[in-house]
Order: sequence, then C-alpha cells, then structure tokens
Amino acid sequence: MAKIVECVPNISEGRDSKVVEACLEPIRKTAGVKLLDYSSDVDHNRSVITFAGSPDGCVEAAFGLAQQARELIDLNQHQGGHPRMGAVDVIPFVPVAGVTMDDCVELAKKLGGRMWNELRIPVYLYEFAASRPERKNLANVRKGEFEGLAEKMQDPAWAPDFGDPAPHPTAGATAVGARIFLVAYNINLHTSDLKLGKKIVSCIREVKGGLVNVKAMALLLEDRQQVQISMNLVNPFDTPMYRVFELVRLEAERFGVSIAGSEIVGLVPMEALVKNEEYFLRLEGFKSHQVVEMGLFGE
Amino acid sequence: MAKIVECVPNISEGRDSKVVEACLEPIRKTAGVKLLDYSSDVDHNRSVITFAGSPDGCVEAAFGLAQQARELIDLNQHQGGHPRMGAVDVIPFVPVAGVTMDDCVELAKKLGGRMWNELRIPVYLYEFAASRPERKNLANVRKGEFEGLAEKMQDPAWAPDFGDPAPHPTAGATAVGARIFLVAYNINLHTSDLKLGKKIVSCIREVKGGLVNVKAMALLLEDRQQVQISMNLVNPFDTPMYRVFELVRLEAERFGVSIAGSEIVGLVPMEALVKNEEYFLRLEGFKSHQVVEMGLFGE
Repeated sequence: MAKIVECVPNISEGRDSKVVEACLEPIRKTAGVKLLDYSSDVDHNRSVITFAGSPDGCVEAAFGLAQQARELIDLNQHQGGHPRMGAVDVIPFVPVAGVTMDDCVELAKKLGGRMWNELRIPVYLYEFAASRPERKNLANVRKGEFEGLAEKMQDPAWAPDFGDPAPHPTAGATAVGARIFLVAYNINLHTSDLKLGKKIVSCIREVKGGLVNVKAMALLLEDRQQVQISMNLVNPFDTPMYRVFELVRLEAERFGVSIAGSEIVGLVPMEALVKNEEYFLRLEGFKSHQVVEMGLFGE
Repeated sequence: MAKIVECVPNISEGRDSKVVEACLEPIRKTAGVKLLDYSSDVDHNRSVITFAGSPDGCVEAAFGLAQQARELIDLNQHQGGHPRMGAVDVIPFVPVAGVTMDDCVELAKKLGGRMWNELRIPVYLYEFAASRPERKNLANVRKGEFEGLAEKMQDPAWAPDFGDPAPHPTAGATAVGARIFLVAYNINLHTSDLKLGKKIVSCIREVKGGLVNVKAMALLLEDRQQVQISMNLVNPFDTPMYRVFELVRLEAERFGVSIAGSEIVGLVPMEALVKNEEYFLRLEGFKSHQVVEMGLFGE
C-alpha cells in the first residue's frame, strides 16, 4: 500500500499572487508530491495550500515552501484579519493512507529540525506533535502573534521546540504539527427557519450532549432559502459522515423537516467514504484496494 | 484525469501454474499497467486475469499475454468444463475512468488487428465492439468451441473480423471486445429459508418485473445459515448498488426478513461507490477527484 501524507501549510500572503505562486513552486517541482488545492483570502491576507504524496516528498516540499516564504514575506509589513506569527504560519502533516499519526509526528520533527538548522526559523510543535499539553492547541501557541513573539519567547515556558528563543526577524516562527484529516461537511435542510437550524446544531454539539469531533454552525443559504448545518468533522474516522448525517436527519425529522442534500467541501480520504458504504450497504470485509483506481495507485 | 482501462483476459489453462505465470509476465513487465488479480479454476482448466492501466499499456500487455498463450497452450490437448475456442479465449476491455466505451472498442480493434498480423490468430469482435448484432453475445461467437471452429469459420456469416477463415492450429481463435464494468455483489439475509430467497430473486429479476442489468440467484450459506442473493451487476452505473440493495431490502421486509450484510466480490470502480454516497447522503456536486487518493493518482 502506498504511503500517503497530506500537508496543509498556511502562508501569510493572500494578496500578491506572484508571492503565492513562488511558494507553490517547490511543491510543483518535488517528485512524489502533488499540489491538490490552494486558495488565498484577501481579507485574511493568507493562503491555504494543500498538497499530498510520499512522506519524504512532503517534508521536502514543505521545506522548499518555507524557504520561499522566508525570502518573500516580511511579517513586519503584514496586515490581515487572521492571527499569524510566521511567514509560513502553520504546517500540519496529516495521515491519509498507509501511515500512522506517529509517522506524521516524526515528519513534523524532521521538518522542524531542518527549518531551524537551515533556515534559522524557530519552530513550535503542536497538536499530536506537541511536546507539552499547553502546546497542543494552535491558538495557544500563536497567542500574541508575530508582534508579541519576541517577548513571549523570553518566557522559558514558551521556548521553541527547535531553535533559539528569538523570532526570525522577518519570518517570525512556525507551528509545525500533525493532525487528523479534517472533512468539511454541510447538510442542507428543507426549511428557511434559522432558529430551527440552531436548535438542531445544539442537539448535535458535543457540549450539549451530541457528537464528539463535530464542529457545527447553522446559516441561511439565501438563494436556496434553506438552512445549512455547516460542519467540520475533526475526526471523520471515529465520528464518520454517516453518523452525523443520520443524527441530523433524526433531529430534523422531530420538527417535521427533511434533509434536502449534503456536500463535501474540498477533500476527503477514501477511508471516510468506505465507512459510509459499510454502514449504508451493511458492507462486510471491504478493502479500499478493491476500488480499481486505488489498486492501481497503491504498491 | 488519468485514463484507466481494465482488461480481463481468460486463458485456457487453469492447472499448470507455470504456464499461467508465463502468461502474466508480459503484464507485470508493461509500464503503466498493473496486474490486479488472477484466479485459476482447475475444473474449468481456465484462468481469469485482471489488470488495468493506461489504454495503450493495456493493449500492449494483452498482446504480450496472447503471444505467450499461443506459445504455451495447445487447444488440441485442452480439456475443461468451461466453453472455449482459443488459447486466449476472450479479451474484454472495460472503461474505468476518463475513457468512453468507444475508446475501448478502438482498443479491441487495435489488439485484434495486431493479433492477426503478428500472431496469425483470427479474432472475433464481441459485445460493444461487435461488427454484427449476432456477434454481440459471446456465447454465440464461441458456440461450437475449438473443436467446431474450422467448420464454423467456413460459413461466411462467421468469418472472423480479423484474419483468414481458419483457426490457428493450436491457439484457435479469440474473442476481443469491449464491455461495461461488472460488479459481483452479494446480499445476505437473516433467514435460512432458500425458498424465500428464490422468491426475492424472482422479484428483482428483469424478466419478472424487477431491475434491468441485474443477474441474480439465491443460495444457502451453510456456515452462516443465511440465504445469499448472489448477483452480477452488469451495469453498476445505470443500475447502481444502492438501488439493488434497497429493492432487496424492501422485498425481504415484506416477508419480515432483514438484510444481514452485503459484500462486493473483487473489484469495483470508484464511480459506482460514489453513486451510493450520492444516494445515501443525498450528496450534491461531488467529484471523485475530491478523494485525496484519487486526486493524487489522476492528471
């Protein structure tokens, strides 16, 4: 089976497409790695880049991107709506197939070491790669942002995992980590009653007695006059799409409302889809390499 | 998007594994093509080989296999329970992704031409590649088998599509064609009542007012004491798995019997699984390249 890792670096540039393109270049050039998606947000002045491929290829491409970002982005000049502390702000490695979370933690450490040794960018490890509990949460690590970084790093509790306790003068510091694949999943309801949507959201939220691993909000789709339950599934393996769909269906039915449709925004790993097939078709013993295209791809 | 074709040659050897292995060799050696599965049936004295890959790679690999089979298999010596007329008996090309049925018809013609020109094996085109209506059905083409071939070919109505109207002395003739992907799909019921299973089968069969594109039979799984509805879905795109599952579920429920589970035997194309996701999750606008692994694979 082929080993596949996804990597989703966020860079602090969302306005100058030449800079973004220059940061994509190392990804396009790295063998065994493929650029899957990127999008720039002008207000945030930030771009989210998604690529995937072999574990070593991903480290190589991410390093190349960090190098370009360090050359081309000066955080002293940066303004934007999204919190940030580095030219490359955050680099998560995500297991997709044939690799474990521990493997991705190792990739994060490998990249972190190289970023300090070769680029002099201090690195914090976060989420599954975190060296201390308070560094798991990215928001904690990034608190104070670039402007507060020099002072924050003086605190021994916030010494970086790689590098000296001082930000790179223009590139700041980077959070490098390992996390679970995140699926953006939306369910549209046959109602324009946003209050009702919010009730349903409160039913499926963990804090209210609903599902873990689901971040949800309700919003009104003006053009369709449908309420959308917009969700991030932060662990689509333990809490799969079908369970979310079925629970929303049940809670909506209570109010006499049915599901109009659903959508997966962006990427989804095969394994998450297979869980749906297994549930809905009561499928037994299915392996994803039975999918012709997957069998061709793997080793 | 990558162009993917599946090819499922059947060779008239199911006992001597050295011969089978020699026939697999050209597939293993052809760039852009991957051997996905093969199985030999001793009673049939026949092996079914499945490989897939680029269109040109598939023609190349199939030609190599035909060459090996011609060298190593002598139909004058062949005995087995399955009808056959050639050393390579049948070679269907199947569209998987990014190719049309017409593309596969062209591949069949390309291979057929080469098999005659370079190997002196006469070729009949069948199914979607058939040159006449009566040649669509493989059973018609193969009727009379190797032993009756010399006489049958004298009839102008059965002149081969490529080659002279006489069988190759040891390798006979080959049916080369294009067909739709076939999915072997079984549904197990919470009952050991085979009569009831047969009633359900008669409900879902085309001739009895059921579904087209479904070949079904009922059998008893002794170890589980469950009736299995064993099916070939000969067009899993027009008549997708979910529709078959739901119809079996409804007809079984009428007798108070529920579905215990289902299984996909062997390979399934991604598109067939996506149809299930679309139905069960009411999924809108989903493209198979949103599956990370697929995005990596395609161009």
